Amino acid sequence: MRPSGRAPDQMRTIEMIPGFSAHAEGSCLVKFGQTHVLVTASVEDRLPPWLRGKGSGWVTAEYGMLPRATHTRGSREAAKGKQSGRTQEIQRLIGRSLRAVTDMKLLGERQITLDCDVIQADGGTRTASISGAWVALRLAIDGIMAQAAAKGTPLAGDPLSQQVAAISCGVHSGQPVLDLDYIEDSAAGTDANFVLTSTGGIVEVQATAEGAPFDEETLLRLLRLARIGCNDVFAAQLKATGR
Amino acid sequence: MRPSGRAPDQMRTIEMIPGFSAHAEGSCLVKFGQTHVLVTASVEDRLPPWLRGKGSGWVTAEYGMLPRATHTRGSREAAKGKQSGRTQEIQRLIGRSLRAVTDMKLLGERQITLDCDVIQADGGTRTASISGAWVALRLAIDGIMAQAAAKGTPLAGDPLSQQVAAISCGVHSGQPVLDLDYIEDSAAGTDANFVLTSTGGIVEVQATAEGAPFDEETLLRLLRLARIGCNDVFAAQLKATGR
Amino acid sequence: MRPSGRAPDQMRTIEMIPGFSAHAEGSCLVKFGQTHVLVTASVEDRLPPWLRGKGSGWVTAEYGMLPRATHTRGSREAAKGKQSGRTQEIQRLIGRSLRAVTDMKLLGERQITLDCDVIQADGGTRTASISGAWVALRLAIDGIMAQAAAKGTPLAGDPLSQQVAAISCGVHSGQPVLDLDYIEDSAAGTDANFVLTSTGGIVEVQATAEGAPFDEETLLRLLRLARIGCNDVFAAQLKATGR
Amino acid sequence: MRPSGRAPDQMRTIEMIPGFSAHAEGSCLVKFGQTHVLVTASVEDRLPPWLRGKGSGWVTAEYGMLPRATHTRGSREAAKGKQSGRTQEIQRLIGRSLRAVTDMKLLGERQITLDCDVIQADGGTRTASISGAWVALRLAIDGIMAQAAAKGTPLAGDPLSQQVAAISCGVHSGQPVLDLDYIEDSAAGTDANFVLTSTGGIVEVQATAEGAPFDEETLLRLLRLARIGCNDVFAAQLKATGR
Amino acid sequence: MRPSGRAPDQMRTIEMIPGFSAHAEGSCLVKFGQTHVLVTASVEDRLPPWLRGKGSGWVTAEYGMLPRATHTRGSREAAKGKQSGRTQEIQRLIGRSLRAVTDMKLLGERQITLDCDVIQADGGTRTASISGAWVALRLAIDGIMAQAAAKGTPLAGDPLSQQVAAISCGVHSGQPVLDLDYIEDSAAGTDANFVLTSTGGIVEVQATAEGAPFDEETLLRLLRLARIGCNDVFAAQLKATGR
Amino acid sequence: MRPSGRAPDQMRTIEMIPGFSAHAEGSCLVKFGQTHVLVTASVEDRLPPWLRGKGSGWVTAEYGMLPRATHTRGSREAAKGKQSGRTQEIQRLIGRSLRAVTDMKLLGERQITLDCDVIQADGGTRTASISGAWVALRLAIDGIMAQAAAKGTPLAGDPLSQQVAAISCGVHSGQPVLDLDYIEDSAAGTDANFVLTSTGGIVEVQATAEGAPFDEETLLRLLRLARIGCNDVFAAQLKATGR
Repeated sequence: MRPSGRAPDQMRTIEMIPGFSAHAEGSCLVKFGQTHVLVTASVEDRLPPWLRGKGSGWVTAEYGMLPRATHTRGSREAAKGKQSGRTQEIQRLIGRSLRAVTDMKLLGERQITLDCDVIQADGGTRTASISGAWVALRLAIDGIMAQAAAKGTPLAGDPLSQQVAAISCGVHSGQPVLDLDYIEDSAAGTDANFVLTSTGGIVEVQATAEGAPFDEETLLRLLRLARIGCNDVFAAQLKATGR
Repeated sequence: MRPSGRAPDQMRTIEMIPGFSAHAEGSCLVKFGQTHVLVTASVEDRLPPWLRGKGSGWVTAEYGMLPRATHTRGSREAAKGKQSGRTQEIQRLIGRSLRAVTDMKLLGERQITLDCDVIQADGGTRTASISGAWVALRLAIDGIMAQAAAKGTPLAGDPLSQQVAAISCGVHSGQPVLDLDYIEDSAAGTDANFVLTSTGGIVEVQATAEGAPFDEETLLRLLRLARIGCNDVFAAQLKATGR
Repeated sequence: MRPSGRAPDQMRTIEMIPGFSAHAEGSCLVKFGQTHVLVTASVEDRLPPWLRGKGSGWVTAEYGMLPRATHTRGSREAAKGKQSGRTQEIQRLIGRSLRAVTDMKLLGERQITLDCDVIQADGGTRTASISGAWVALRLAIDGIMAQAAAKGTPLAGDPLSQQVAAISCGVHSGQPVLDLDYIEDSAAGTDANFVLTSTGGIVEVQATAEGAPFDEETLLRLLRLARIGCNDVFAAQLKATGR
Repeated sequence: MRPSGRAPDQMRTIEMIPGFSAHAEGSCLVKFGQTHVLVTASVEDRLPPWLRGKGSGWVTAEYGMLPRATHTRGSREAAKGKQSGRTQEIQRLIGRSLRAVTDMKLLGERQITLDCDVIQADGGTRTASISGAWVALRLAIDGIMAQAAAKGTPLAGDPLSQQVAAISCGVHSGQPVLDLDYIEDSAAGTDANFVLTSTGGIVEVQATAEGAPFDEETLLRLLRLARIGCNDVFAAQLKATGR
Repeated sequence: MRPSGRAPDQMRTIEMIPGFSAHAEGSCLVKFGQTHVLVTASVEDRLPPWLRGKGSGWVTAEYGMLPRATHTRGSREAAKGKQSGRTQEIQRLIGRSLRAVTDMKLLGERQITLDCDVIQADGGTRTASISGAWVALRLAIDGIMAQAAAKGTPLAGDPLSQQVAAISCGVHSGQPVLDLDYIEDSAAGTDANFVLTSTGGIVEVQATAEGAPFDEETLLRLLRLARIGCNDVFAAQLKATGR
Repeated sequence: MRPSGRAPDQMRTIEMIPGFSAHAEGSCLVKFGQTHVLVTASVEDRLPPWLRGKGSGWVTAEYGMLPRATHTRGSREAAKGKQSGRTQEIQRLIGRSLRAVTDMKLLGERQITLDCDVIQADGGTRTASISGAWVALRLAIDGIMAQAAAKGTPLAGDPLSQQVAAISCGVHSGQPVLDLDYIEDSAAGTDANFVLTSTGGIVEVQATAEGAPFDEETLLRLLRLARIGCNDVFAAQLKATGR
């Protein structure tokens, strides 16, 4: 029995509120149960120096957690003067995941920054961030395409041809389960994050033995759970973006 | 005529959602029109070193703004590795304002940290923070008092005997107006923030000539507007805390 | 009775030594009793990026305190690797105050940096800094005007048409008093800094209740004291700049 | 054909020189072809604060790269004043991997720090680090056990009951290949790092699509290659530690 | 002919104003011509951790330069967030030099921090700092000894049995000269700083070829000049400390 | 008797392995007994801003020590976020020493960075660094000259006309001795580093009294020892560079 009372392959309730931010070119408040992340997509003409003048765009991500998003207050990274290794690892993963489904040539010389800020945390903040970031990115790219078309210089194609979503799975009390919340995650023997595309491809696998090493069979069973979960996320993304 | 179409002494719609955060001992999502700030109050037993063992508590504040809370994306302070002078100035002001209405002896050896994170900005983020922080603090102290009473060691009195609220006023197109939004603030000739208590006292005045210097009469007219605005805030605070 | 033995509206002895620094384009060692601040004005052709090519100049300030300017040694900010919130708040105030009386168009594409370094502290270092900074700025602008005239390209007018000065006031033992020294400041119930122009305008008011909130009447009485004090400062500034 | 001319399942030459450092309690210079990493294990009695007094030990890792370990000079992290996200991600992975095979209770109140410094880089520095770190850790623990036995207070068992090794695999020109060097890695479509134990368990999988997403079959084929490679590493580790 | 018009073995005018600071336990404003350094000695009971409980004291130094001490404005180290290599090198030298003449056992468990802040620079700021620091240290130790005697627990002896002074010499236009000012220093072929004791001992030699290497004879001639210069400094120190 | 058992004027065994690094334009692993330093020379076309467009080159150095190069583990400077004063002092010395024998005009618009990383430390790391850096620099310049000649645009001359080497000497148990190892250095009464050229010139002298001040005679005896030692280094440098 899971602490959450959910079935092994049962997700938490997913909610995706598009356009949550009044200012951003794209945004989404994504909720996986009690995990709430605000993602904004900011479109800028300024590219990183190494990309300028090559006709390509860039998608990057930053991640943060409000100090009291968690059960006990964590220190504020801005006050400490540096981002933790965990934060940097997560924001690198988010950026990589979204770049995997974006055609930089079609995007053109634009940078889109995805800010993922955890308002409330209950496990799975990085996978919720990736899942919500796709919505914010989709909305921002919709806007870019509409503006470009309105100016009579339409993009040659949609830079975002697929969906990408992520989910965490783990082994809890010996049983593979889907979409760990904080209590389940703390007690999980193996913890795995999967980033998958809507056409069935794998973008990233990060599986870690928290206690005893795991075997190939476990890895595959976790992957199968992840496919189930991501299908729910893909549906929520479509709904949130009006598709 | 104000850009917002409001009357000179008209506030934006105030909304205060208490208990917005699942984890914090007290919390409030405060909205002054399109300015939205999430305030959490975290209660800890750990005091700053210079206060330990003196039987007194402490209230402090931290302030941050999500990178895309604003019209154009600002850089993330955690990524830059330091808080701006503006951020530090604001969080010092918030802390001072709340300490002004808290009895540290009655609070006892506890520290309450008020995290004010701007989710969306449209002018007046520091005054909204102070106003919402009172709600979060009130709820946290209610909890402390209830717990202490339940343990048979009630506090000797309520550490928070008054309300405190803040509002910004300014001179726009030659006319003193209340509760500036971003567009009005950008064009204001004089900009003043007032922190007032519910019993009519002044806790802080910060008035700055953005262009030409101002005179005593203007200062007094802005203060009178602030009193009008703070009365609305006091009412909203009472409602949000169920009083 | 004030600890200093001064009358409520009595300033400390003001001394302003112009040209104290051999290298700076303008400089002033300003003394308010035992508070001694060295201000230098450095003129540079290099503007901050956002101002370049607009035909306007800029005035900015930095503030520091020698580690043993105070009764007990404070840590050196350069060694700690960051400026405190207090330091940043003060240098922002100084810059704002001097910009309020400078015409940036007349100044032309030049930046003047006012370095205010506290050699010895006894209360009122920020207000002494502002008051002395005007002298350093005046001397630097005199030099700019003289050089421009000598080159046959005189400035279209004097960029510094007014004086600006600042003073701290406070409520000590229930009585409003002028120009607080350190001992008085430590015990003050209300502490207010006023930045005023020689033509009677108010540039900035920063009034803070250290203990109990204060009322409008107190604010006005402190402002009246400030006017008295600033008149003395204006006279000293004129004398120091040979006017 | 691989750029290196190797067969798809062919490792580079592995060399492990134990005791390379005169001072460290354990050390190993590990070479995977032209990738050379010096690992030292430092034993200290001082534990991180959150572990003190619990009767358990800790294993942690730090990672660095000499500025000219690479084809072109990279900037020195100590001079830049911070470790990159990549560095932090790698050192967290190394620490996790070695902790997965260490019994902290048996280790007792000791911390072992594994410093992995890349002297020369040609792809696979993180996996070489993990593989060499096991040798340094094994030697350090041998020393701890010998000293404890000599004092008549032997450890209750060997804290390091298994081996751990890591290898990178990838898809190059459509073909899964083992142990990527820098040139192969730069052109790889999918890049995967596996951390495996000598008893066949999986400690960590990190698989990333650099271009197109990959499928389950590819993941499994890369895992199979990793098993082949790690067997070679396990043998080299045994030889280096005289087992 | 030297740019300064001085004879090769002629010092600039030395002035040492003891007790310049109202707060410090010892202080000295030292002037070598247009080089002005304020040195304060701060006595604290708090020792660095590695010295506590050993019955010994410590003398350390910090060095800084006001941004406009120099011909053109330098950036403020506190604003940049770190001390330059030059600053650190100088403060290490000052600390070492003063420790060389201090008996730490006699000093007892006290730390004296010598803050050397350059108010105005014209070459030789590090040697002026050392020379003035001796005066500040002497005065602070006089105070410690007097207080200890007054309490009936006199020190077992004077911790400062000798004087220490420093001077820079160099080869200018082929001729060894004493006490370089900024213009001479900029053009010097060899630059040497000597730290000497009043009993003729050498505490530190730092000689650097700025252009062509120098020979042993030059080193000795510079040392002889330094002895001449330090004798003047020793006399000024005695006068400043009333001996 | 020296702890090392060496005669007073006896060096440790010197070993210089040229071309140790596969990637750098010049490199050398230098060993003075148990002190091992890897020096790489990196040639880049990018000059520091203040040198651009002047037809001259630049030589600079960075220094680092692996955390466990020493008897007990030191903290990693990259993790602490800053280089120590000692590190900065040493890298400034290395850069100065190599620049003293390099003709920047002949070098042309190129920067050569000498990275000196201490793999293992047993005293004399800075002098070993300088000595080895000459080899790395010589090899890099040989490469530059060969490439320039191959392109038909030979350099006008060899930018490195002399050798430079460094050695530490000290007074141990009252006797001047050459090439201190760590144990000798820890107990040395006077510690002196000399940087000398192969034509007999002195580039830098840094002599420090660790305990009692020293006299002129001691300085000269240490210099004589340094000449003996550097002659051995010069011979090893020639051998390592195939001259």
